[in-house]
Amino acid sequence: MNREEIIKSVSGQMPERRWIHTLGVMSTSRQLAEQYGEDPERAELAAIIHDVAKFWPVEQQRSYIVEHQLDTELLQYNKELWHAEIGAHVAWAQYGVEDQGVRDAIRYHTSGRAGMSKLEKIVWLADYIEPNRSFPGVEEARKLAEISLEESILFGLNATIMILIEKHRIIYPGTLAARNSLLAAKLD
Amino acid sequence: MNREEIIKSVSGQMPERRWIHTLGVMSTSRQLAEQYGEDPERAELAAIIHDVAKFWPVEQQRSYIVEHQLDTELLQYNKELWHAEIGAHVAWAQYGVEDQGVRDAIRYHTSGRAGMSKLEKIVWLADYIEPNRSFPGVEEARKLAEISLEESILFGLNATIMILIEKHRIIYPGTLAARNSLLAAKLD
Repeated sequence: MNREEIIKSVSGQMPERRWIHTLGVMSTSRQLAEQYGEDPERAELAAIIHDVAKFWPVEQQRSYIVEHQLDTELLQYNKELWHAEIGAHVAWAQYGVEDQGVRDAIRYHTSGRAGMSKLEKIVWLADYIEPNRSFPGVEEARKLAEISLEESILFGLNATIMILIEKHRIIYPGTLAARNSLLAAKLD
Repeated sequence: MNREEIIKSVSGQMPERRWIHTLGVMSTSRQLAEQYGEDPERAELAAIIHDVAKFWPVEQQRSYIVEHQLDTELLQYNKELWHAEIGAHVAWAQYGVEDQGVRDAIRYHTSGRAGMSKLEKIVWLADYIEPNRSFPGVEEARKLAEISLEESILFGLNATIMILIEKHRIIYPGTLAARNSLLAAKLD
């Protein structure tokens, strides 16, 4: 599928306000890619698709993961992580995205992971700070993003872990691994 | 070795103030064991030995882990975790403690782990709240310990994770796993 066809398909699977968020992630991903020396087209493509499965009914998400033999360990964790795993598969199976790096940027856009690629970092961060986002700390994350991808993501991951603790929610181990990995690279 | 010989050996390997802490962990472990239906003798034995290697020089700790083929992955993490792994081995190799449950209570007294036994929980918590401890939150942990081992440990693990985030320190994945495991049991 070409860009326009993918946009039509993805935007049809979510409410308007989520598509507006996606448009924000697209433009922020392009911007960060230009700033940090990554391909803006790849960053934008991952951004277009990243939330494709976000509004699928939960049971459809669960079945998709089981039927396509994706990472079923995720089913033990917060269901908000599932759509990212599914999105990466849809990108390949339905939209013909062969670029593994783009698919991994979709796959890890919510959880993060240890040793994220630059493209993964860009999409994770764009999702966190795109212009429609408003939550305590987003301005600090935006400021940090002007200086360093890693510092901004580390700030965001730390904030995410602390919020999950406050809300008495399970924390996905991959998210801690992403945070530890960025911190270790910084301390080295 | 009998109890008195072990006490003599352990107390000789640390400064007086740490031995006073150990006496506190011993009495609190006994108390919690009585309260929650565990064997006070086993709890006290783990408490006596738990910090035996805490004041060994760091290089001696590192060599011990390598030479005795203990969990070398720990060497990538905070060195404050090493003495617990070593203590469990010393308990067996030098003091002849054959009770695996006692050794595991020593081994996980700092990090915790997913699916902790009651004895492990008692020693972890006694180490956290014994009467000589004073830090913000210790009173709340003590109050919770009167009601529930698990609630108090969960409180302590959450506090520990947040402090490590504030201090820009690596968080050991086993500590998150311990926290998630207690929370999941509670949410079930």
